[in-house]
Amino acid sequence: MKFGIVFFPTVGPADKSGTQYFDEALCLVDLAEELGFAHVKIVEHYFFPYGGYSPDPVTFLAAAAGRTRRVRLGTSATIPAFQHPVKLAGKLAMLDNISGGRVDAAFGRAFLPDEFAAFGIPIDESKDRFVESVTAIKRLWSEEDVVFEGRYHRFGPVTLLPRPAQQPHPPVFVTTARSAESCAEAGRAGHNLQTVPNVMATEELQDRLRTYRAEWAAAGHTPGAEQIHLTYPCVVAEDGEEARRKGRYDDDRNTTAIRAAVASWATTRSTAYPGYENLVKATQTSHFESKLDGNKLLIGSPEQVRGQLEQISSWFGDDLTLSLGVHSGHLSFEDAATTMRLMAEQVIPKLKGGLA
Amino acid sequence: MKFGIVFFPTVGPADKSGTQYFDEALCLVDLAEELGFAHVKIVEHYFFPYGGYSPDPVTFLAAAAGRTRRVRLGTSATIPAFQHPVKLAGKLAMLDNISGGRVDAAFGRAFLPDEFAAFGIPIDESKDRFVESVTAIKRLWSEEDVVFEGRYHRFGPVTLLPRPAQQPHPPVFVTTARSAESCAEAGRAGHNLQTVPNVMATEELQDRLRTYRAEWAAAGHTPGAEQIHLTYPCVVAEDGEEARRKGRYDDDRNTTAIRAAVASWATTRSTAYPGYENLVKATQTSHFESKLDGNKLLIGSPEQVRGQLEQISSWFGDDLTLSLGVHSGHLSFEDAATTMRLMAEQVIPKLKGGLA
Repeated sequence: MKFGIVFFPTVGPADKSGTQYFDEALCLVDLAEELGFAHVKIVEHYFFPYGGYSPDPVTFLAAAAGRTRRVRLGTSATIPAFQHPVKLAGKLAMLDNISGGRVDAAFGRAFLPDEFAAFGIPIDESKDRFVESVTAIKRLWSEEDVVFEGRYHRFGPVTLLPRPAQQPHPPVFVTTARSAESCAEAGRAGHNLQTVPNVMATEELQDRLRTYRAEWAAAGHTPGAEQIHLTYPCVVAEDGEEARRKGRYDDDRNTTAIRAAVASWATTRSTAYPGYENLVKATQTSHFESKLDGNKLLIGSPEQVRGQLEQISSWFGDDLTLSLGVHSGHLSFEDAATTMRLMAEQVIPKLKGGLA
Repeated sequence: MKFGIVFFPTVGPADKSGTQYFDEALCLVDLAEELGFAHVKIVEHYFFPYGGYSPDPVTFLAAAAGRTRRVRLGTSATIPAFQHPVKLAGKLAMLDNISGGRVDAAFGRAFLPDEFAAFGIPIDESKDRFVESVTAIKRLWSEEDVVFEGRYHRFGPVTLLPRPAQQPHPPVFVTTARSAESCAEAGRAGHNLQTVPNVMATEELQDRLRTYRAEWAAAGHTPGAEQIHLTYPCVVAEDGEEARRKGRYDDDRNTTAIRAAVASWATTRSTAYPGYENLVKATQTSHFESKLDGNKLLIGSPEQVRGQLEQISSWFGDDLTLSLGVHSGHLSFEDAATTMRLMAEQVIPKLKGGLA
């Protein structure tokens, strides 16, 4: 198992200013570099405290690139539907050069109706746009004189500059939350996978990962070369009770944030998002204890969290990378730094066969 | 007079890799911070060696923000036509927070037909899109629950996150190359001005600046509060002959780069860009000696460049900021660092009344 850090701010201006949040987050990036974490990532969202402090993940990752030399830099995810593929391919290629080839490029479809509405993109087109744009971006990275004739974008012949530092291009991940078919397609396409165990049953995720790995191998991609990244909120303290108290507070705030962000699903229906209308209810019946007991949250003393990780490893395999959500912004900088130090010094080194 | 650094790469993969160019540029950013330069800026262009290494200026500026604490960070310019105003406002607001309020936001219309074609934007719409997007971005920065009903974009009510660190918003500049009317409009709107003396006669620029300052004051904006930034390529060496030799080489390479980028103006006509079809010829008849004699390039020994700056100050006033193009990428990192050190240590301190 490898471990990285993912930033998913759920604070708004009434909680913590953007300047303070990013100052803290960049100090945590320095700590991730120092402690040997594999990556730092950040999400893309808009308008709501639910991720809204990060409308452009590449901007944050570039700031991280400017002050680090080793840690990898990941979008988690970036949304091709909300910008032109030439723009997104270009900025990720710049970041890849600025960082000396440290970019992991995860792409997502997005799922919040208000975001699609603001960008004037019909949510029903989400999947087709995703597939088209990822195809365009990979071609812009790996080919010259690209002529692209898509349904939504047509351009060329053009040769993207700068050429990516990683050849033929940065590792591509698909960030998928729920769909079995998306996992199968990602495997066939040779894309790495990034997902959030929190939103589905353990057996369901086991099934998704089995499908993904089988399709990856069946399509002729090198077995075992696929990367699977799972995201977990994480609060660790020497005292397990203190960790639980803080973790519960953090989870409450995160749940409040997602509840506001998905509210418009109460009145939205899309064939591209079957069942998403149930998100509203799901966020209203979210229980901290059952999530903790189900190992959807990594919260507790170092020993407790080590136990959780061994259970997770037995469920999903240990050729996994876990992205730890250590700083939604509701707990203090010191709390997040403590979580990272305890993970790096007391949890990860004692895992069976697992170093960051 | 104040002085900053602007990056306008004109190298392609055959000259210098993107990784090397950005590694050098970020070391020069550190030097700008150390030597007390007022700002670092970078351009936005695509596909051609003419600026094409920087398709997203915010990405580079964020890397600069991550490793500096004082120097201001400017787009030079960024092009609203090529991305959604929510996206551009959002990433600039992120950069403003990441940098602790150091963003200067300069917007431009762009002028290369191949860039418009790739983004599927009719070049004739360039001015209307520019005006609409700058309006939208300023509203997203300074208002909440924004409802925007433009010709090209409609959205809202939305409240942009994060809120900018600078209140009500980062200083707005209009980057304009040639049009007198654009200068007048910028003054009336209370926008700061950024321009390139290289592309017009001295008398013409004097006239533009007179118009701009007069319209600024007539519209009720505080006289003297307007900022004017002029961009100059700059090569300084202890030995003036060495500076000229290197400066001529650099200018030749820059001229070759712009010639390739504007080639499609030979077959493009747009009412939004009157006279631009002459750019092709203009780039073919560009002469180093006459540009140097006309003080369009700052090249020579410290004493020679000091003389040029005193002439420029007498033409345009000394309430100016000059952005020095020190690293197109064709000269070495050491040459660029020498230019910056000599400017900071031997030229600027000896100017009449002028410290960086």
